[in-house]
Amino acid sequence: MSNTNLQDYSHKRFNILTGEWVLVSPHRAKRPWQGQNEEVNNEKRPTHDESCYLCAGNTRINGEVNPDYKDVFVFTNDFAALQNDSPTFNVNDGLLKAQSETGICKVICFSPDHSKSLADMSATEIQKVVFAWQREFKELAEKPNINYVQIFENKGAVMGCSNPHPHGQIWSQSSLPNEVDKKNTQQLNYYNNNNSSLLGDYLAQELEKQERIIFENDGFVVLVPFWAIWPFEAMIVPKRPLSNILEMTEAETLQYGEAISVLTKAYDKIFNTSFPYSSGIHQAPTDGNENKHWHFHMSFYPPLLRSASVKKFMVGYEMFGTPQRDITAEQAVKMIKDCL
Amino acid sequence: MSNTNLQDYSHKRFNILTGEWVLVSPHRAKRPWQGQNEEVNNEKRPTHDESCYLCAGNTRINGEVNPDYKDVFVFTNDFAALQNDSPTFNVNDGLLKAQSETGICKVICFSPDHSKSLADMSATEIQKVVFAWQREFKELAEKPNINYVQIFENKGAVMGCSNPHPHGQIWSQSSLPNEVDKKNTQQLNYYNNNNSSLLGDYLAQELEKQERIIFENDGFVVLVPFWAIWPFEAMIVPKRPLSNILEMTEAETLQYGEAISVLTKAYDKIFNTSFPYSSGIHQAPTDGNENKHWHFHMSFYPPLLRSASVKKFMVGYEMFGTPQRDITAEQAVKMIKDCL
Ligand SMILES: O=P(O)(O)O[C@H]1O[C@H](CO)[C@@H](O)[C@H](O)[C@H]1O
Ligand SMILES: O=P(O)(O)O[C@H]1O[C@H](CO)[C@@H](O)[C@H](O)[C@H]1O
Repeated sequence: MSNTNLQDYSHKRFNILTGEWVLVSPHRAKRPWQGQNEEVNNEKRPTHDESCYLCAGNTRINGEVNPDYKDVFVFTNDFAALQNDSPTFNVNDGLLKAQSETGICKVICFSPDHSKSLADMSATEIQKVVFAWQREFKELAEKPNINYVQIFENKGAVMGCSNPHPHGQIWSQSSLPNEVDKKNTQQLNYYNNNNSSLLGDYLAQELEKQERIIFENDGFVVLVPFWAIWPFEAMIVPKRPLSNILEMTEAETLQYGEAISVLTKAYDKIFNTSFPYSSGIHQAPTDGNENKHWHFHMSFYPPLLRSASVKKFMVGYEMFGTPQRDITAEQAVKMIKDCL
Repeated sequence: MSNTNLQDYSHKRFNILTGEWVLVSPHRAKRPWQGQNEEVNNEKRPTHDESCYLCAGNTRINGEVNPDYKDVFVFTNDFAALQNDSPTFNVNDGLLKAQSETGICKVICFSPDHSKSLADMSATEIQKVVFAWQREFKELAEKPNINYVQIFENKGAVMGCSNPHPHGQIWSQSSLPNEVDKKNTQQLNYYNNNNSSLLGDYLAQELEKQERIIFENDGFVVLVPFWAIWPFEAMIVPKRPLSNILEMTEAETLQYGEAISVLTKAYDKIFNTSFPYSSGIHQAPTDGNENKHWHFHMSFYPPLLRSASVKKFMVGYEMFGTPQRDITAEQAVKMIKDCL
């Protein structure tokens, strides 16, 4: 380990993508836990569930019937957080500032098989999900009022997922979300100063050090970022500085599928449970600009800390101060790699 | 309501204190919930619990025995996230940036009565907690390596609280946490431009409108901020632009206690359950500067959304994009006021 202080003493690490910090307390991992335990459900689900509104052939709440889909199925969210046809307005009343926000929200079923998760799917099956992300991204990006497309997945009841059927979501909207805005600024500043990709240069450094790398293939690197917040947080980064997912070659789409497959399979082994997480792809805005400073990447934020039932709580200090973690990024990498 | 669009259509609101946005989706509150239900424990606890490491006279994990305290009891956290005596170091290795962070973490028991919470305590009893916060703040502020003092409480198992005994925490450290840094910048900019307190001017606007005010007394206002994120988020703000809690008159400490009492009692009535939340006081850094731009305030972030067992999940979109809420701040105020 290049710096043993980082494994022994409380310190903060800088997130080059957001410009924010994380507090790391390596000595605190020994703290006993008497708090809340999550429910663990390791029961095998059926491949088709009559009562699931995402299974093929079933009727959704709004009366629509799902087609008899064979791999991926996408539809517009029946309870979308963003409306596409609402009026445009602006509130600028002293210190009260608001703005209408329009958008389109979609749901994407990864497989007709109710019992599966990405971890149970092959790289080629996941490649079909990647193709669907690309199709949706392209279609949404072309709409004049859509300037950003957020692809994400909430997996597991503990991550607010209300249906175990393998699925993710796509929320697209007219303005840049907070987190995307931060990453836009940091990447743009770096690109302007160095004429190279911030993440590309970071990747080169990590590949040289080999301290936080989980896996790599020809196109992608899976690693625990130096500034990771969640106990087993990881990031999938294309080796080439691709600004969005449309820029992948077909070979890269499969390599991307492989990277997702390897990581999610390892996750499930850590605590011998279907590993909950929220994942998301951050990529260039769809505002019509070139956005050369963007290097797309996918992050996984899994909450489990000590076992299948004990998660990390991002509460008081974390909400009012700074995210805090106990095990270091380097300890987490070792545990994930042991599960490869 | 001054702008009905805000009650009908998806929009974003600007947080003047952090410079960030919240996405509001008023139409989405009707969405059915099939996801995780939290465990509700409405059982009355005993006034003294032999196995509680915070009760008077009991022995803590490190062997220390709690005194037979009568109101408030403060001690140094046995599993502190920040160490005070660790070495100082700096990592500046290409894109890897880290810095040692030292500090002191304390636990503060609000009452020897194991069965109580702040909601069950009188304004005068809470005033004693306020006095303890002041004593601790003063003592920590005087230490040369402590430049910020974060006072907070995690209440309820769902907020990662591992012991139901009424208590809060104080984490103090050498640098400014992320959230404090944002609020520092926003308040400083406003103060430099307007020569007045950002929150003071905001308060004047809200008192005039009377749309988001929950309660006020001579010294304090309790309101739901226009940009609230959590379903029943609220903020307690002193009417005078006090930079930290030491600047209160004795009368104001009691008015502050009353404000906390009124809000927490109302919370418990919303879903007829001991209302979980994380609360925290944001105040001026203790860096030796005057920090006239700071206006201290206390925020409450309660997660419950629809019932004692259904909370709001800040997950996928919220983690990768922007915090999102369904019921509007104005709807929440009405529900809280109905419980006064
Ligand atoms: O300090 P506690 O009560 O053991 O722990 C709780 O509060 C801390 C500060 O918000 C968090 O870091 C922990 O995740 C949470 O479980
Ligand atoms: O869209 P769903 O699955 O109904 O809801 C889930 O994901 C959303 C987007 O992250 C969150 O706003 C909700 O709190 C969460 O329960």
